[in-house]
Amino acid sequence: YSDSYSSVGDPMWTYFTAVAGQDGEVDAEELQKCLTQSGINGTYSPFSLETCRIMIAMLDRDYTGKMGFNEFKELWAALNAWKQNFITIDQDHSGTVEHHELNQAIAAMGYRLSPQTLTAIVKRYSKNGRIFFDDYVACCVKLRALTDFFRRRDHLQQGVVNFVYDDFLQGTMAI
Amino acid sequence: YSDSYSSVGDPMWTYFTAVAGQDGEVDAEELQKCLTQSGINGTYSPFSLETCRIMIAMLDRDYTGKMGFNEFKELWAALNAWKQNFITIDQDHSGTVEHHELNQAIAAMGYRLSPQTLTAIVKRYSKNGRIFFDDYVACCVKLRALTDFFRRRDHLQQGVVNFVYDDFLQGTMAI
Ligand SMILES: [Ca+2]
Ligand SMILES: [Ca+2]
Ligand SMILES: [Ca+2]
Repeated sequence: YSDSYSSVGDPMWTYFTAVAGQDGEVDAEELQKCLTQSGINGTYSPFSLETCRIMIAMLDRDYTGKMGFNEFKELWAALNAWKQNFITIDQDHSGTVEHHELNQAIAAMGYRLSPQTLTAIVKRYSKNGRIFFDDYVACCVKLRALTDFFRRRDHLQQGVVNFVYDDFLQGTMAI
Repeated sequence: YSDSYSSVGDPMWTYFTAVAGQDGEVDAEELQKCLTQSGINGTYSPFSLETCRIMIAMLDRDYTGKMGFNEFKELWAALNAWKQNFITIDQDHSGTVEHHELNQAIAAMGYRLSPQTLTAIVKRYSKNGRIFFDDYVACCVKLRALTDFFRRRDHLQQGVVNFVYDDFLQGTMAI
């Protein structure tokens, strides 16, 4: 591990090695266990495995499906930033994000979505109309990834893209 | 419930009411508990919540995010069909679907994907190269839904579609 020499003094290193286990890398299920125990979701139910997979897919630059120490630290920082963002968005302090709160959040991030699309998103990521932290992260990360994917092909920046079927599937199935 | 008069003699009805609880409808978490207990996944770990959500989204024609009795029966039939399909695809009887098995399955279903897209899909839905039943269902249902979404807009059937950003997001975020 090229990481380990510079990492021995890092308090995160002990934590990382405990989570990563024998192979020295963190996969989606190890991450799920770790995030469930951390209590970051504010509930006792398991942290979403889907969210773990989406986050690993975003950071896993060497395409192993697992995370090394540096990727793990990056993820930890990103998650804490999302947590701060979530607390800000949850204006009525209900512990969850509701339809109108998501609407404001998405607009503040610079996305322009129709009411129908927003409703479809809320339906997909909420439980009884409430969006919990793990699902909020999945929603935002996916929204950003799909928007990036779209923009990279929107060469004229007109909000319209010509997709070939295989390319469309490659971009949307993996996220 | 218009259902209930014709359903009292149906053995599934007792099971459905036990799963559905007070509101008489099954949501994603109730479905997850029920499928985990049924042992259909062939493992003791929880049945994927993502798969439950995807399946409910496919069958939920009245857009409540929950399933009534008829939708539940339909889902049960669909799941059993997927289980038969999974057993057929798992030619080496490893209990999971591997890269080459998925390749054959997808080709047999009539999809034509590039090797790169197949690799991206396997990476997303597998654990250590193995695709378990719940993730297999999520993968196939999502592949079908995204393909249907694409085809409905491919009026000339040329495998190329012009997407407007909002429409693209509405179709891909909700699946
Ligand atoms: Ca990696
Ligand atoms: Ca709130
Ligand atoms: Ca197999």
